[in-house]
Amino acid sequence: MEGVDYLAPERNKAQFDVEEMKIVWAGSRNAFEVSDRISRLVASDPAFRKDNRAVLGRKELFKNTLKKAAHAWKRIIELRLTEEEASKLRFYVDEPAFTDLHWGMFVPAIKGQGTEEQQQKWLPLAYKMQIIGCYAQTELGHGSNVQGLETTATFDPQTDEFVIHSPTLTSSKWWPGGLGKVSTHAVVYARLITDGQDHGVHGFIVQLRSLDDHLPLPGITIGDIGMKFGNGAYNTMDNGVLRFDNVRIPRNQMLMRLVLFRSIMVLQVTREGKCVRSNVPRQLVYGTMVYVRQSIVSDASCALSRAVCIATRYSAVRRQFGSTNGGLETQVIDYKTQQARLFPLLASAYAFRFVGEWLKWLYMDVTQRLQANDFSTLPEAHACTAGLKSLTTSATAVKLTSLLQDGIEECRKLCGGHGYLCSSGLPELFAVYVPTCTYEGDNIVLLLQVARHLVKTISQLGSGKKPVGTTAYMGRVEHLMQCRSDVQKAEDWLKPNVVLEVFEARAARMSVACAQTLSKFTNPEEGFLEHSADLVEAAVAHCQLIVVSKFFDKLQQDIPGKGVKPQLQILCGIYALFLLHKHQGDFLSTGCITPKQASLANDQLRSLYSQVCPNAIALVDAFNYTDHYLGSVLGRYDGNVYPKLYEEAWKDPLNDSVVPAGYHEYVRPMLKQQLRNARL
Amino acid sequence: MEGVDYLAPERNKAQFDVEEMKIVWAGSRNAFEVSDRISRLVASDPAFRKDNRAVLGRKELFKNTLKKAAHAWKRIIELRLTEEEASKLRFYVDEPAFTDLHWGMFVPAIKGQGTEEQQQKWLPLAYKMQIIGCYAQTELGHGSNVQGLETTATFDPQTDEFVIHSPTLTSSKWWPGGLGKVSTHAVVYARLITDGQDHGVHGFIVQLRSLDDHLPLPGITIGDIGMKFGNGAYNTMDNGVLRFDNVRIPRNQMLMRLVLFRSIMVLQVTREGKCVRSNVPRQLVYGTMVYVRQSIVSDASCALSRAVCIATRYSAVRRQFGSTNGGLETQVIDYKTQQARLFPLLASAYAFRFVGEWLKWLYMDVTQRLQANDFSTLPEAHACTAGLKSLTTSATAVKLTSLLQDGIEECRKLCGGHGYLCSSGLPELFAVYVPTCTYEGDNIVLLLQVARHLVKTISQLGSGKKPVGTTAYMGRVEHLMQCRSDVQKAEDWLKPNVVLEVFEARAARMSVACAQTLSKFTNPEEGFLEHSADLVEAAVAHCQLIVVSKFFDKLQQDIPGKGVKPQLQILCGIYALFLLHKHQGDFLSTGCITPKQASLANDQLRSLYSQVCPNAIALVDAFNYTDHYLGSVLGRYDGNVYPKLYEEAWKDPLNDSVVPAGYHEYVRPMLKQQLRNARL
Repeated sequence: MEGVDYLAPERNKAQFDVEEMKIVWAGSRNAFEVSDRISRLVASDPAFRKDNRAVLGRKELFKNTLKKAAHAWKRIIELRLTEEEASKLRFYVDEPAFTDLHWGMFVPAIKGQGTEEQQQKWLPLAYKMQIIGCYAQTELGHGSNVQGLETTATFDPQTDEFVIHSPTLTSSKWWPGGLGKVSTHAVVYARLITDGQDHGVHGFIVQLRSLDDHLPLPGITIGDIGMKFGNGAYNTMDNGVLRFDNVRIPRNQMLMRLVLFRSIMVLQVTREGKCVRSNVPRQLVYGTMVYVRQSIVSDASCALSRAVCIATRYSAVRRQFGSTNGGLETQVIDYKTQQARLFPLLASAYAFRFVGEWLKWLYMDVTQRLQANDFSTLPEAHACTAGLKSLTTSATAVKLTSLLQDGIEECRKLCGGHGYLCSSGLPELFAVYVPTCTYEGDNIVLLLQVARHLVKTISQLGSGKKPVGTTAYMGRVEHLMQCRSDVQKAEDWLKPNVVLEVFEARAARMSVACAQTLSKFTNPEEGFLEHSADLVEAAVAHCQLIVVSKFFDKLQQDIPGKGVKPQLQILCGIYALFLLHKHQGDFLSTGCITPKQASLANDQLRSLYSQVCPNAIALVDAFNYTDHYLGSVLGRYDGNVYPKLYEEAWKDPLNDSVVPAGYHEYVRPMLKQQLRNARL
Repeated sequence: MEGVDYLAPERNKAQFDVEEMKIVWAGSRNAFEVSDRISRLVASDPAFRKDNRAVLGRKELFKNTLKKAAHAWKRIIELRLTEEEASKLRFYVDEPAFTDLHWGMFVPAIKGQGTEEQQQKWLPLAYKMQIIGCYAQTELGHGSNVQGLETTATFDPQTDEFVIHSPTLTSSKWWPGGLGKVSTHAVVYARLITDGQDHGVHGFIVQLRSLDDHLPLPGITIGDIGMKFGNGAYNTMDNGVLRFDNVRIPRNQMLMRLVLFRSIMVLQVTREGKCVRSNVPRQLVYGTMVYVRQSIVSDASCALSRAVCIATRYSAVRRQFGSTNGGLETQVIDYKTQQARLFPLLASAYAFRFVGEWLKWLYMDVTQRLQANDFSTLPEAHACTAGLKSLTTSATAVKLTSLLQDGIEECRKLCGGHGYLCSSGLPELFAVYVPTCTYEGDNIVLLLQVARHLVKTISQLGSGKKPVGTTAYMGRVEHLMQCRSDVQKAEDWLKPNVVLEVFEARAARMSVACAQTLSKFTNPEEGFLEHSADLVEAAVAHCQLIVVSKFFDKLQQDIPGKGVKPQLQILCGIYALFLLHKHQGDFLSTGCITPKQASLANDQLRSLYSQVCPNAIALVDAFNYTDHYLGSVLGRYDGNVYPKLYEEAWKDPLNDSVVPAGYHEYVRPMLKQQLRNARL
């Protein structure tokens, strides 16, 4: 029956104002309204249909993506959408495409690293999509270690040009999205060589394809790197391979304003081929980094909340066991084992949302100060970036994406067998978010950077240098090393200060233990390598503290709406106590809590699960996702799952004919015992 | 360069006899020889090529599978392969197909549940593949709870027939492999109704399709349920949907010999429609269950070892960071963080292999006793099955498959970005093994069954009933509740008794704690539901103990070959100490070990990683997998990864043309600012 809301009984149980929660989730009333309007616009446009993705072959799939990208751009122009609206529209179209790299990497690279002159030349072309750009950094043999890239850009003073060249097979550019089939231009990272000297890795704007016939320019070999994980997923993207055979570009196509990528270096090449360092201060780099990480965190909360929304709704629809006298079976959401897996993920979705929001604020704050252009007057920004280095150069984002990936998979498992069907939407969601763990820096490499910062912070404590920002708690290290939690009953675990202190104590003690171990090595680098697994664990403890504390900060704010704040308090409690339970070993081995206290935390956690249960459906409704965006039969708003699953099945190409292709050649001879003579 | 072994330097480091380790892995010299011969046979036959799977559309992919199945059967007949060899051949063909269900479920169901007469009629047809069968149990609305199935089989005494019917949409059979497009017959599970009375769920042999033209028989609606997770993966299988509209079958097609599935019930329907219970003893059921679980464990060790083989070889090929003076970068296998993730999985592959071997022995032992047909003389079997109930009805297998799935994903991540490419083989491997977590019983449901058994065992301790088999350690519960580990230095953790005792103490204490909590409830079922999350954790502790103890048992055997046993001892140590580290919280909160001892275990673990590192490549070579079976460019035996990755890329259909389809319609108008007028 169309139009019936099978989840209405669940929605009626909610103890808070869902509409107000939608505003909290969106971040502001305005953000909610834009999201709401644009998501409906996309959902109602048949050109953005995506339920057929899994059955399309690669070529068809890709062509379809090109069509959607063109249609999206057309709508953006026709409706005169603002930059914010346009970006939301691309978001809700929900299909990886070359435009992601054009807008997300190519344009920012030119804005960030191009001189005024370069920006004036290239940005108008890019803004109108008269050129399409990508970001060609990683190579077949080189990923995380950017300084190990092999592609060369050798300055030729005779012609005032750079010669871009791929000297080896492993120097082939490999992975850049949008490169394989579409981009006309790329920002290419290559080793700058002048006068036989290697000046490290820098960015260059290189045209790849003719603007007339789209053929690769002379000296350029280019193609797609092949199928990736999943059915549709990232196979809509033309991740590419690229080789240069002595390709020449003018000197002014080296990005000169601020030449950097993770490493910080400022350099210009003069007409004579001399390298000149300019004096842009180091702090500028932090802005870009905060931006990238912040968008990753924000993506993480979106993806996880989608998966959680699907799993939560389906858990209320699905019934299994527990029937007495032929009555209805029990909804699986009512099982404690289901709750213990699902609700921490629901809480995580909210936790990530709020830490993402805080990072956005941080980014704006840093940027505004930098845009004043008077670098010397930014002591505040300096302190901030220094103190937040552990977060910005690294890891909350990164740990989140790993958690995210596991979280999406867990949601799929929570949907039982049907979660394995493409029509559940979960395989696609998983396959699309899998790479976030690797791109923008391998998780482990980045967590080690956090650990390095933590150890450094500790080593400087004696010198009177006061740790700031997210490491400020280290300033109370003496207290944190010896404090003991005074929790005596389960409810004590509801107190923010109690929870925060044990998270701080755990993080501090793990970092200090690492620092002590390292100090025993004559060569600290050797110690660092030997104990890197422990260092990673210390970094994780620190990052979890950040997320927990930002959730508590959020709860300090004024949050309107009937019952809204109490729900968030419950979710915050679930998030923190779940982590405490999961990492019990850390808390116990460092003596922050006793086994008895750990057990009380677990009791409290169970009680919080019971409290959140009647609100779960409303809490996922607050994400305000359309059925189009969710793309899941199991996660339908109206809960009408089974008839739709049944309907979807018949759309598979295999069902085009009753007797399958191949029956006469391969099955019938088997059944009729005529295989011996059959020609297969 | 073809023919060069780029991993030779790694192979030369090995400190043990790889050829002897291959025998250990295979289980016996004979098993090794059969596997080796058949895997080469498959690898050298172009008809079994599988590297093109990811780019095929669903129809093509499926037709290709039909072809392979026919070719495999043809070869089996031509070469007069034994049953063991035929099954190995299907294994190495490595593509899910309808034959899996025919041989793995349909035939065993008839053998296990058919009367002599039924077996004589149906088995010869099935053995020659004159009929093709599947196993139709799960329904759209019913998975784990078999007793909740809705399909009915109503006896009509007037015609001496059963009427099979699907009364609701949710009663549609859903998921059975081989059903959608191929099977001519099925064992269908339905509620037996005689004289208006419901006798629960039983199995019936039902013909589905005409043997002449393959069309569904009257009253039968049948089709494929659509795309599933992954590119090729399980999309080669026609998982199906099936509805009955009052389909009649003769009475003698009810499987009557031993009617059971998980629940144990023995029942026949007479000509008059009377239900008669016969007296086949309950113990018979255990044989089948042990068999199914044992094959799941065995599959788990295969899949995990494949993933580990790929990740280990690629970790030795891949280099990143650590270059000094322009020299080679460091092999990623040398990083401690890589080792701490990779080597526990390598150790797990071996651990699962040995527990699988033990289960195989257990199965043979139980079967031989049952086949004597003199049920009364099997006290030994009775004791054995009772004691092993926790293992057989449930969970080691199940916990393993979950670990397996996470393990394959972890291996993919350990390969960095390139693991996301289909040519790495890892996405396929993951997508194929994902469903093992759900089928054959949801993990959590089964773990709760173990927990129930553990609690029951504890409650009977007072009554003088001695726990046996895998729960025998519960007999020493008084000692285990209060013992303290006397580990004082890292090397103490190498002693089997020391390790076993802490694993036993942890498992016993967690189970006892659960039992105590439950005893406080007046309604024990209520307590069971409320504390199910803790019960699951206790069950996991018990299962891990079993795997660890079976690994130690293996090491008690005489194992020939230079250096072979020492390597296995290292792996066993890694497996146990990794679990101890991962579940530190359990061991500490139950007071089995002190924080200091936990830290010493970690030190020992790190040292074991260093010891296994030079042997890692040889340890995965011992799996003896062909490059065909591995199906991974990253895992190639010769380590020649990069040129082959590059070569593979060009095979993608997107690279058929330099300018992609869709360029003229969708990209060019964008670049030329003509989108406004374009018809999309």
